[in-house]
Amino acid sequence: MSDHLKNHIARFVKIPEQDYPEILKYFTVTELAKKQNVLSEGRICKCNYFVIKGCLRLFFITEKGVEQTVQFALENWWLADYTSFSTQQPSDFYIQAVEKSEVAALDFSSQEKLLERFPLMEKYFRLIHQRAHAAAQFRAKFLHSLSREQYYHHFNNLYPEFVQRIPQYLLASFLGFTPEYLSEIRSKRIS
Amino acid sequence: MSDHLKNHIARFVKIPEQDYPEILKYFTVTELAKKQNVLSEGRICKCNYFVIKGCLRLFFITEKGVEQTVQFALENWWLADYTSFSTQQPSDFYIQAVEKSEVAALDFSSQEKLLERFPLMEKYFRLIHQRAHAAAQFRAKFLHSLSREQYYHHFNNLYPEFVQRIPQYLLASFLGFTPEYLSEIRSKRIS
Repeated sequence: MSDHLKNHIARFVKIPEQDYPEILKYFTVTELAKKQNVLSEGRICKCNYFVIKGCLRLFFITEKGVEQTVQFALENWWLADYTSFSTQQPSDFYIQAVEKSEVAALDFSSQEKLLERFPLMEKYFRLIHQRAHAAAQFRAKFLHSLSREQYYHHFNNLYPEFVQRIPQYLLASFLGFTPEYLSEIRSKRIS
Repeated sequence: MSDHLKNHIARFVKIPEQDYPEILKYFTVTELAKKQNVLSEGRICKCNYFVIKGCLRLFFITEKGVEQTVQFALENWWLADYTSFSTQQPSDFYIQAVEKSEVAALDFSSQEKLLERFPLMEKYFRLIHQRAHAAAQFRAKFLHSLSREQYYHHFNNLYPEFVQRIPQYLLASFLGFTPEYLSEIRSKRIS
């Protein structure tokens, strides 16, 4: 099964080697086609997704009918609509594979059982969410302190591989740019 | 000691009654004067703060020398710079009491010891950070989908008591308004 997931867990918590086969049984590894949705607005976010390969995004559709991305998850990141997932109530969001992807999906009741059976996994998920909480604090800081152009360059410095991989119209929408403005910034840098 | 904190923990996890006195020993209850800083830029965020009474805010100082609030914590909320706290490296932020406050402070090594001694507290903090992660996803949605005026009204509907309590210049800065724009919106609604 997924060595990626095992290695990721091992970076955060010390789990005895012999427990991994049982832990990994709670997950379902799934291949997703490019643009395949695993969550749609109005449906319940049944799973918490760990990205083994590829990229997922969380987005919603604005009143004007435009898809607005609010979060991306590359390899080794987790993604769910955590409001819908934790309450098991309908979601306001969509989750979609940006490219052909492979995910380890943990459905809500499996997560509850896993956490009960292996309490060390509480620590793992505590650290995952704490890191996301910390990232949200920094994102708020950058949104308030950087111009849109600076924000793009900051993003490009932090995640160069990501910026290369993501379709430009998605990156522009995530950063709050028009695609035209993004190509303008990019061409400025190259020239 | 703090019944507030005990009641809050009990809302999330089932801890045997007899464990609470020992759990609460890891915390230090402190009174904070209005505008007292418990964290300054360049210092390490040593504690994770639970607000028993009052209100804290996390802010940074922009290049122009302006204080920009990125997060508030009222009663029953936790606040820290989670990057600095988890790495025990210097912070980019300040944490300040907005009004006279009472907090239960959990320093980093006490938190580590508490979590080791009472693994159920991992679940408690996992749920706290998961909730904050979910809130950040919704905040990103609102920032992209609502006008600034709609955002204020949304905020006012969700947290009317909070909007009444917080000094208006702080609320304006948090929402990304000028104080003048905020009074304009408020007077429109009253008239």
